[in-house]
Amino acid sequence: MKFHVLTLFPEMITGALSASIIGKAMERGQIELEAVNIRDYTLDKHKKVDDYTYGGGAGMLMAAQPVYDAYQAVVCQDKPKPRTIYVTPQGATFNQEMAKEFAMEEELVILCGHYEGIDERVLEEIVTDYVSIGDYVLTGGELPAMVMVDAIARFVPGVLNNDESAMTESFHDDLLEYPQYTRPAVWMGKEVPAILLSGDHKKVEEWRLEQSVKRTRERRPDLYALYEARQALIPKKKPRRKKF
Amino acid sequence: MKFHVLTLFPEMITGALSASIIGKAMERGQIELEAVNIRDYTLDKHKKVDDYTYGGGAGMLMAAQPVYDAYQAVVCQDKPKPRTIYVTPQGATFNQEMAKEFAMEEELVILCGHYEGIDERVLEEIVTDYVSIGDYVLTGGELPAMVMVDAIARFVPGVLNNDESAMTESFHDDLLEYPQYTRPAVWMGKEVPAILLSGDHKKVEEWRLEQSVKRTRERRPDLYALYEARQALIPKKKPRRKKF
Repeated sequence: MKFHVLTLFPEMITGALSASIIGKAMERGQIELEAVNIRDYTLDKHKKVDDYTYGGGAGMLMAAQPVYDAYQAVVCQDKPKPRTIYVTPQGATFNQEMAKEFAMEEELVILCGHYEGIDERVLEEIVTDYVSIGDYVLTGGELPAMVMVDAIARFVPGVLNNDESAMTESFHDDLLEYPQYTRPAVWMGKEVPAILLSGDHKKVEEWRLEQSVKRTRERRPDLYALYEARQALIPKKKPRRKKF
Repeated sequence: MKFHVLTLFPEMITGALSASIIGKAMERGQIELEAVNIRDYTLDKHKKVDDYTYGGGAGMLMAAQPVYDAYQAVVCQDKPKPRTIYVTPQGATFNQEMAKEFAMEEELVILCGHYEGIDERVLEEIVTDYVSIGDYVLTGGELPAMVMVDAIARFVPGVLNNDESAMTESFHDDLLEYPQYTRPAVWMGKEVPAILLSGDHKKVEEWRLEQSVKRTRERRPDLYALYEARQALIPKKKPRRKKF
């Protein structure tokens, strides 16, 4: 799968993803990530990419021409137009289902805004999906673009090993993760719960489920309500857990 | 304000924020950002930081000792303990209000997990806030940590100039941004709406409000419902808009 990220800060994109699982998938050729500098495509002789807003208002707007020409440069004329995401707090909220859906694309263009935004006409021309990663304001679209690349790439076959895939799968469920412990058995006077050292797999499973239910009820009543509703419908279904 | 990010991938943190507004605030000394490598604090002779999970299960867990010692290294013994965020999909969902609240702290520790998670005992010992940036799975806590640093730093006095501050402020409102346009007045046959060139500020304002309402109704029915409810309560209140 190939990601083209259109941005004014290409160095933010390439550095931050290279250390992660995505970096390894890039080395193996499963993922390609290209950061395209929109400024390289401006026809302005001073390399300007922004201008004042018609009708007045604070701040500068990215002009249509450089954005459009950067997009044209990454789009292959012989193939259907790729899905093109504009990262904006005005978009639909990104989630795990959306990540899975985007992962089925062969190519994806992600457009990062800066300043006050981008001229509406070029958005109408090229954008297929308006997506937000959450209800908070960020300096630009670069961090959200990286978040999306990371979440989407995890669904591309072969990017994760089996253990890691299992973790991604388990996020679909309605319960939070139970507490986890590793060696030593006693750390700063705190003991690992005895049941986890018992070797009794059935009891371990029961304890973990109990802990997950308790934690979900306390920390995420919204998820707990979903879990309760589902339990009422399918009383025999064994719940799964949401993992990191 | 000082951020201490505890991570196994410090190079992801420092590179990605230097290009943004946050980078400039760091140069001016308004923001300090320190990425602390947890691996530097392990007592294991092979520099190992993870181990198997008690009770079984796929994947490795970060051990308590290196995390705790990295935390101790950044915490000043003479001062009250700083708020310490653990980045996890199991946390409360990050939003603009939370960013504002964290921005009032003098120091903030952000702990990034990797692998299957972190030994529960060290989380109990040091973490004050469990925070998630959204309902999707990422490879580690580094990207969410950067997202939080960016959103929080924007509320630190002096980091943004006045224009930019106005943008952040306006996100609190219930309407999405109206379409915006910059030069040229005609681009690829598409004209800027005539009203924006009219110079009639009152009409421009009316048009923008109309567009904001229309767009919010179409794209974010959840926000539109809030807007309608508020309009019903305070019929004379002039709505403000959510901007990038």
